Amino acid sequence: MSLKFGVLLQRFLNATSHYRLSDSTRTGHSSFSPRTHACAELRPKDVGEEVTLCGWVQYRRHDLFVILRDFSGLVQLLIPQDESLVHLKSSLCGLPLESVVKVTGEVIHRPPGQENKAMATGAIEVSVRSLEVLNECKQLPFEIKDCVKKSESLRMQYRYLDLRSPQMQSNLRLRSQLVMKMREYLCNIHGFIDVETPTLFKRTPGGAREFLVPSREPGRFYSLPQSPQQFKQLLMVAGLDRYFQVARCYRDEGSKPDRQPEFTQVDIEMSFVDQMGIQTLVEGLIQHCWPEKMGPVSLPFPSLTYAEAMREYGVDKPDTRFGMKLVDVTEALYGTEVGFLRDAVTHPEGCVQAICVPGGAKHLQNKDLEFIRQTAKTHFNQELSLVVLKADGSWKSPLSKHLPDSVKQQLLQKTHAEAGDLLLLAAGAAERVRPLLGKVRLQCAELLEAQGVAVRDPSAFHFLWVVDFPLFLPREEDPEQLESAHHPFTAPHPDDTHLLYSQPDKVRSQHYDLVLNGSEIGGGSIRIHRASMQQYVLENVLKEDASLLSHLMEALDSGAPPHGGIALGLDRLVAIMVGAPSIRDVIAFPKSFRGHDLMSGAPDFASEAELRPYHISVNLPAEDRGVRGN
Amino acid sequence: MSLKFGVLLQRFLNATSHYRLSDSTRTGHSSFSPRTHACAELRPKDVGEEVTLCGWVQYRRHDLFVILRDFSGLVQLLIPQDESLVHLKSSLCGLPLESVVKVTGEVIHRPPGQENKAMATGAIEVSVRSLEVLNECKQLPFEIKDCVKKSESLRMQYRYLDLRSPQMQSNLRLRSQLVMKMREYLCNIHGFIDVETPTLFKRTPGGAREFLVPSREPGRFYSLPQSPQQFKQLLMVAGLDRYFQVARCYRDEGSKPDRQPEFTQVDIEMSFVDQMGIQTLVEGLIQHCWPEKMGPVSLPFPSLTYAEAMREYGVDKPDTRFGMKLVDVTEALYGTEVGFLRDAVTHPEGCVQAICVPGGAKHLQNKDLEFIRQTAKTHFNQELSLVVLKADGSWKSPLSKHLPDSVKQQLLQKTHAEAGDLLLLAAGAAERVRPLLGKVRLQCAELLEAQGVAVRDPSAFHFLWVVDFPLFLPREEDPEQLESAHHPFTAPHPDDTHLLYSQPDKVRSQHYDLVLNGSEIGGGSIRIHRASMQQYVLENVLKEDASLLSHLMEALDSGAPPHGGIALGLDRLVAIMVGAPSIRDVIAFPKSFRGHDLMSGAPDFASEAELRPYHISVNLPAEDRGVRGN
Repeated sequence: MSLKFGVLLQRFLNATSHYRLSDSTRTGHSSFSPRTHACAELRPKDVGEEVTLCGWVQYRRHDLFVILRDFSGLVQLLIPQDESLVHLKSSLCGLPLESVVKVTGEVIHRPPGQENKAMATGAIEVSVRSLEVLNECKQLPFEIKDCVKKSESLRMQYRYLDLRSPQMQSNLRLRSQLVMKMREYLCNIHGFIDVETPTLFKRTPGGAREFLVPSREPGRFYSLPQSPQQFKQLLMVAGLDRYFQVARCYRDEGSKPDRQPEFTQVDIEMSFVDQMGIQTLVEGLIQHCWPEKMGPVSLPFPSLTYAEAMREYGVDKPDTRFGMKLVDVTEALYGTEVGFLRDAVTHPEGCVQAICVPGGAKHLQNKDLEFIRQTAKTHFNQELSLVVLKADGSWKSPLSKHLPDSVKQQLLQKTHAEAGDLLLLAAGAAERVRPLLGKVRLQCAELLEAQGVAVRDPSAFHFLWVVDFPLFLPREEDPEQLESAHHPFTAPHPDDTHLLYSQPDKVRSQHYDLVLNGSEIGGGSIRIHRASMQQYVLENVLKEDASLLSHLMEALDSGAPPHGGIALGLDRLVAIMVGAPSIRDVIAFPKSFRGHDLMSGAPDFASEAELRPYHISVNLPAEDRGVRGN
Repeated sequence: MSLKFGVLLQRFLNATSHYRLSDSTRTGHSSFSPRTHACAELRPKDVGEEVTLCGWVQYRRHDLFVILRDFSGLVQLLIPQDESLVHLKSSLCGLPLESVVKVTGEVIHRPPGQENKAMATGAIEVSVRSLEVLNECKQLPFEIKDCVKKSESLRMQYRYLDLRSPQMQSNLRLRSQLVMKMREYLCNIHGFIDVETPTLFKRTPGGAREFLVPSREPGRFYSLPQSPQQFKQLLMVAGLDRYFQVARCYRDEGSKPDRQPEFTQVDIEMSFVDQMGIQTLVEGLIQHCWPEKMGPVSLPFPSLTYAEAMREYGVDKPDTRFGMKLVDVTEALYGTEVGFLRDAVTHPEGCVQAICVPGGAKHLQNKDLEFIRQTAKTHFNQELSLVVLKADGSWKSPLSKHLPDSVKQQLLQKTHAEAGDLLLLAAGAAERVRPLLGKVRLQCAELLEAQGVAVRDPSAFHFLWVVDFPLFLPREEDPEQLESAHHPFTAPHPDDTHLLYSQPDKVRSQHYDLVLNGSEIGGGSIRIHRASMQQYVLENVLKEDASLLSHLMEALDSGAPPHGGIALGLDRLVAIMVGAPSIRDVIAFPKSFRGHDLMSGAPDFASEAELRPYHISVNLPAEDRGVRGN
């Protein structure tokens, strides 16, 4: 066929008329490209080779050297000084920083003594023979290398410059590789299917945090779901057996620090599995995707029940990288005459809890102690008793003179407190005292670290399962009523199922959280797979309108297998792995904490004409209208 | 640490108290599960083994056999007939179809002569020893095996049942595997980074098809983007070098057949690349992900310029699986006396085009011919001349008596038409006549196929590049003005750049489309990377307000590398691969053509309370209000 020959000929001509023939068999990160190498790949073994590099002019030294940067890192270019190449020299020396060039040159050894051990390519340089300026940089709001120092809003506004920093490049690359490894584990090793589920969906009953999307049908709205929960359960009913998705999720929370209106979760669901199966799967997943350079992950992850976590750490996502656990010292204070302690120990649900902050007396300042006290007051409306154990072992505390020595001795013994430590005591109902101490425990760790005391190893990664959560909790607005601790599809703990119909508030669930260094990075559960139980939970326990979920109830009655799953918060996981202070540092184009895209200015005003097809109009608040009226 | 021992002990107890210890070293699709095998895995080599299977009761025969189904397929269970297992028999025989069970039993050979060659597991069966009913099926709106025959709206309403069909299971599994292979190619072999870009973004200038998302700030809206175009270009400016994403995209097109409001594209962008580089990359990508069982893909793909495609096929996405190409017969008709032909050949831009439909005279009915004629009239407001070449070679056509034999001879020669063929002629301006014949060409193929004539091989996959598109087209509303043929970021063809400033309507672009079997499955371009040219195109050629894209212009001035990319329509690609009539057959939970989710009833009405935080209210159209007022 003559077409074919024409095509081949044309392609050959095309290919040679541009850079060079795109070699379809070449692999690696320079395939399909005019460059022969990435900048930071060059090593002494390449000396003598002619190489072509593409990149950005990072900086210049004495009109002798240009540092060229690409995604891989840096390499030094030697500016030719011979008369015959003066045009090349003047081009290279005249280029604004951050201009984009293609250079060809020879790899040479750096002269002895001029090697730079801190640089991967520090033993060589490239003697430039030809240059093509691909794009001159016209303007920069700030220098790239100063980027991190700039205000975050400036970084966000010029995100495309901020992303040139080695840290951001490395964060995004690690994220991509991590997800790829997870996919290999799930898809290739364990037979999961990657299924995409809709994001334009129906409003969930009570889904107050779901964004609305107007449709062209008057009055009708889609909703952007907070997770693919319903879909993944339906996929199990559909017999897909093993589902996963790196799923975009949406949550409209207004302004919350370090939350994003859209975020990503690694969403997993399996049929014919129990809690241990999911946990083992996830442990293997983390181990498989974990970068080698970050050290081994040992399995299985430790596990605490919710009750244990609250008892020992005062929180359901304990940071287990350090001690300072809560100690129940109620017994030691039976018979005390101190009013608030006596009230607590004599009340049937009262207790006195303590934590010992090692070195707290030695390292923490008065203002630190005041800060801790304030936390207790403002966040928990509670008093916190501080005992400073001075270097000589004596007590500095208002409590000191009211407690007999024997009691003091017992307190020290129980909390393992020593001279130089700080002892914190809180008295009252356990469910109020424990969260207070849980929070104060973390504050003390931060305050000590601010003083240079090593409390938590920043290179340590402590995974932890928290299990046996309560299935229901009293509603905040009406404590007589129960609400789901997680969501209404969570199955009860098999040992507690009988209590569902008599004492639902006592039922533990088959929910599990995965915690890493004190942050919840995942949560999941075995689901209810019988319509009758789901209906009972919705109507009799939660008093909700089950008809809104009629499609799910019908599905459970059509042969639903037992199933369960988990969702891992990818943004948070990666942020912790790379030690980023915010998830914004592991998202390419995050929103500001007010939900703005500072680069483009989204969200933005829409014209009436743009709103018309959706049959909506804007109601400006009274004060806005007033201003506009003026 | 005693915690650790406690944890281990607890986990051991947990694990053994449920199914069995989840073996973290087991791989494959039965890991972490109580089953030992998937149903369709069993073969004669497993005879004698005790196996545990989980699945659905597909059907039952004579109270002797149960066919059990899981994601992998079917296996036959032998219902025990001995007295001692009568409870097992009655359970198995009493179970409603589609109930979910776990069975344990021994794999045995089927008695000689009872093998089923059509079934992968047809040589064996499983003699059941124990049964656990995991969930009884209570109701089914239709039988699973009849699913495909049901109306599509019923299939959509009970999608979780529809997905149990082998075809849908296989479609979704192929899609998952295909995407996984693509990821391996891009990420592992060619150094691409998977970057997630936002879907809550700013409205694109002129983005009339973008869904709006109200924010909590009065009057401000996000917009769901039609593609990550801006972000991928910004990632190149950011130096990420090679980006890809399996990206969810949104387009609000109201009701269009076989379009979805949300769809998926494999989105790719590279720096320092030319058109040939991207094309070679994509060819390698398709080859790498192509399932072995579908036969080899040969590279490179053929290529046609836009001008060639229009000339030969009358369309920019030709189906090259069959001939019937357009033939220019203008020359043969110089000097004709037939009015409409003479008008065409004497007009400076007129022409006469023909296609020959092999066997058309023999196989097509009169009503088919009328249908073709109607298409020309209603869609193109054009006359089409039909020449039926009868078996004896004589002409049946109104033209017959007006054309001298010499002209007839020339027409036959040029079109290679023979007795039994159908010849179609259209006269007029080339840009009107060619699309008409392009459409009629496809209709003729369909009509012939409906008569049982093999025109296109359904197992053939013809990939084709279409290149050298015009950069701009006359605006439909105002043909004096130009608009982008694709989008304003497309770079001009290097040979035509000089024309940009003098004759922009003559400039070809560096846009390329990938076509498969007559469907566009991808499109991309080399982008403009210089701000000055981008500004010129926006302001001087397109007369658009460049300030709306100021962030992009700033980015191009901050050291933007040359870059280009492509987006592949994943839904369409998979649909063609599996031979599905609609992309709805390769999407787990598609919307109806009116954009409804028929399972949940989305989009749905929202209450005023739900709208209040977004400062919007609904304007019902007058007629609706009238109805409600009654």
